[in-house]
Amino acid sequence: MTSTLDAERAKSGLSAREITYVLHKSQSHAEKLERLEALLVADPVFNHEAINYLPRSEQYKRAMQMSGRVEVLARRHGLSEEDHELLRVVFQGMTGCAASTTLHTLMFIKNLTLLFTDEQQAQWMPLAKDWKMVGCYAQTELGHGSNVRGLETTATFVPETDEFEIHSPTLSSIKWWPGALARTANFGIVYARLILHGKDHGVHNFMVQLRDLETHEPRPGCAMGDIGPKIGFHNVDNGFCKFDRVRIPRANMAMRAASVDRRGRFSENDGVPHEILYFTMLQTRLGFVRSTGLGLAKGATIAIRYSAVREQGYDANDGPTSSTELKVLDYQTQQYRLFPLLAAAYAITLTGNGVDAFTTQLSQQMQRGDTRLLNVGHAISCGLKVLTTDIASAGLETCRRVLLGDLVQTVTAEGENYVLAQQTARALLKELAAFRAGRPIPDSMKYIANIDQPVDTVRPRSQQQWLEPATYVSAFQQRFLHQLRALERNVAASASTVAGIQDHS
Amino acid sequence: MTSTLDAERAKSGLSAREITYVLHKSQSHAEKLERLEALLVADPVFNHEAINYLPRSEQYKRAMQMSGRVEVLARRHGLSEEDHELLRVVFQGMTGCAASTTLHTLMFIKNLTLLFTDEQQAQWMPLAKDWKMVGCYAQTELGHGSNVRGLETTATFVPETDEFEIHSPTLSSIKWWPGALARTANFGIVYARLILHGKDHGVHNFMVQLRDLETHEPRPGCAMGDIGPKIGFHNVDNGFCKFDRVRIPRANMAMRAASVDRRGRFSENDGVPHEILYFTMLQTRLGFVRSTGLGLAKGATIAIRYSAVREQGYDANDGPTSSTELKVLDYQTQQYRLFPLLAAAYAITLTGNGVDAFTTQLSQQMQRGDTRLLNVGHAISCGLKVLTTDIASAGLETCRRVLLGDLVQTVTAEGENYVLAQQTARALLKELAAFRAGRPIPDSMKYIANIDQPVDTVRPRSQQQWLEPATYVSAFQQRFLHQLRALERNVAASASTVAGIQDHS
Repeated sequence: MTSTLDAERAKSGLSAREITYVLHKSQSHAEKLERLEALLVADPVFNHEAINYLPRSEQYKRAMQMSGRVEVLARRHGLSEEDHELLRVVFQGMTGCAASTTLHTLMFIKNLTLLFTDEQQAQWMPLAKDWKMVGCYAQTELGHGSNVRGLETTATFVPETDEFEIHSPTLSSIKWWPGALARTANFGIVYARLILHGKDHGVHNFMVQLRDLETHEPRPGCAMGDIGPKIGFHNVDNGFCKFDRVRIPRANMAMRAASVDRRGRFSENDGVPHEILYFTMLQTRLGFVRSTGLGLAKGATIAIRYSAVREQGYDANDGPTSSTELKVLDYQTQQYRLFPLLAAAYAITLTGNGVDAFTTQLSQQMQRGDTRLLNVGHAISCGLKVLTTDIASAGLETCRRVLLGDLVQTVTAEGENYVLAQQTARALLKELAAFRAGRPIPDSMKYIANIDQPVDTVRPRSQQQWLEPATYVSAFQQRFLHQLRALERNVAASASTVAGIQDHS
Repeated sequence: MTSTLDAERAKSGLSAREITYVLHKSQSHAEKLERLEALLVADPVFNHEAINYLPRSEQYKRAMQMSGRVEVLARRHGLSEEDHELLRVVFQGMTGCAASTTLHTLMFIKNLTLLFTDEQQAQWMPLAKDWKMVGCYAQTELGHGSNVRGLETTATFVPETDEFEIHSPTLSSIKWWPGALARTANFGIVYARLILHGKDHGVHNFMVQLRDLETHEPRPGCAMGDIGPKIGFHNVDNGFCKFDRVRIPRANMAMRAASVDRRGRFSENDGVPHEILYFTMLQTRLGFVRSTGLGLAKGATIAIRYSAVREQGYDANDGPTSSTELKVLDYQTQQYRLFPLLAAAYAITLTGNGVDAFTTQLSQQMQRGDTRLLNVGHAISCGLKVLTTDIASAGLETCRRVLLGDLVQTVTAEGENYVLAQQTARALLKELAAFRAGRPIPDSMKYIANIDQPVDTVRPRSQQQWLEPATYVSAFQQRFLHQLRALERNVAASASTVAGIQDHS
């Protein structure tokens, strides 16, 4: 027997395989992704079916267990660095488990490369790649996020010992939100104000050890914890840290763009664009585009498949005794809601492919100190991030409603809103029919008697008239009667009221 | 010292107290709500601060503990039935904990009143009011929700024993979604097809015992459980039940509108409108309006208070060295997002007050068998439920973004979308300035050279032209240049680019 889904699929003349190659950049790339995915599918650790049943602390542990296994598998199979990173992406896509370790691989290591000197990298990169250092990126504070200039954490040079003292001087200066800070990271790249002999030199980055490398206990002076439950993103330990005069060696300042010497003198380094300070954030945003498209694609696929299988209600054109139910996907209201989302998922993903290619080019230029494309990159990263996440966020909410999931419960409970809107139209046409037939109608609907009257336009002129509620009631009544007239006309041509509403909604 | 919030409040000439009386229907009603709230505030059981830190099963227990205490307090203080119900509403509003017991008080008991005969009510109502029966309302099935006609559960008359046999004949007939079914209820009013001597008489309601009254174990033939984690609504045990030929006495059919006699003959009862079958659902929807307004009011209040306290960024009109930060509420983009939501919260809540008065009138008429207002009530309940929950749902998402909470994480992470949209404009103006100054611009932005050219309108005529990507690229470029020109003009009048974007966004 052909399944309902197979029947739907058979109607398409497009080759799903060919589309896969386009969506995933090329045939060879798509096949590589499949080979990597097969490594994960074969391992029972990546069975994530029950993860939503676990309390948050257990969800975190499961996500860490899975992301740890990704590292083991990459080594066991001798993957190249590029394929290793791809395996991490495939893992996230397959399980939907955002793991805190991506803050290490995508933010911490990237910043280590960009912000620190070759000597500094030689010291820390082997430890970071070997997971002996597990890092986070601590920029956001309780009081400041987007406004980097307002950050308050201080890094004060201590000439006596050749150290910096990292300190949170106020409540609002506490580092707040950084992912992986609460439990995972033992090091953080901390954004702080550089203070030299009492003078503020603006914000710079500092490598700060947060936890003991043996016991994983917070180091003295680091008061750390979890910022608490969120609506989503449960696997990630977004955390806080209050620094109480924590000392680090002077050599722990990120010295690629600017440096401080033994006597506490500040200098900017020629040939290194200061834009590298925010380049990691920019890269992260650029990477959002493609993943946003794929996220919307998942939601749209689930909602469309469900709609092709789920039956509900009858075709009113078949008359009142019909017993063959329609697939939900047969309703044009459902198509109207879902098909544009599928189109958007394609558009965003393919745009993301282009953005990824651009990012590679931009990174290579930046490594050479060439910033010519940076402003365009900034515009692209901001503009496309806003556009695509807004489309996808609203689209996923639509998918959720189509699946009747519970979030804002009253939107879908006691009658889904799209269905109820049609019920409203039906009840109003019933009142109109009662009026036309000369039957009594309730007082609150008496103005329906004006349905065929010429429109008596409301023309408020004086301030008093503008403030008069009756003005607005009259305007709304006219608008309502206008729409009801149009609906009555449209529905009149159909087999029945129900069929008319179905055909015209 | 005057707090920031007090300073904001002092600017308003309105009396908050007077507005409270309007929002909560009258001074005496508002004061009654405050007296009831004081009962809960005084009891540490209602401290719900940590509830979001608990796993789902514990959240359910805490919500049950609280809703149980509401019943104890109502008895201890000898509240009237009306005040008792109000106390339940105040509890939900104060804690935000949707408790499964509301399915008993708002759905089960209401349906008992509407659907069952006086004799049936005499038998069960005392048990229900005494919480010996705890009920749920089992309409929705895995395969059917909105389409009641399609429900598949059967209630087959067994003449030999004068019983009905309740049965789930298919996978899709399993009762699925009813709140309180998974753990809480020991009885359910079950919607099922009435089968008499092989003939299908459509869907009717049946009182079915689901669990043992001593052990609370499921009765033989009732395979029950929880439908699993949801995105929200964690406290409520939405459940499933598969019936395997469960016998109930014939007298357990809801016999107010229609009845079956000892010989299995069906009759409809005169004077009882069959619309009572869905009247509880209609009442529940009508009640959503006011609670939706109050829900949005909570979100808007939190977001506006936060915005009045949170400082971020500088007034660009003060020049680049300004160090006095703006309150987020000082930005017109923030006002543009939040103030309409506050207005909507007032509008929806006050509409809800009117709807509540209408519901009281409608219920009294329905009890007398008078259905004249029912169609209008149906239109109101559907139309306002759709309109208000759509406004509130989108509005609460805006509040969440303003507070930077994590839901669809990429919308707020790595730069909130409203802020980034302004960054995009800024970067694009920078490219334009480079072009005007004769500096080189990247290839991808070369078309900016057409900024002052007369618009060369794209005029696709042939099918080939419509399918040509260049047509669309050209149209988008023209639209973009048009907007960029307007922005450049507007910003030119301001002190700086940043100030211009701030003033014109």
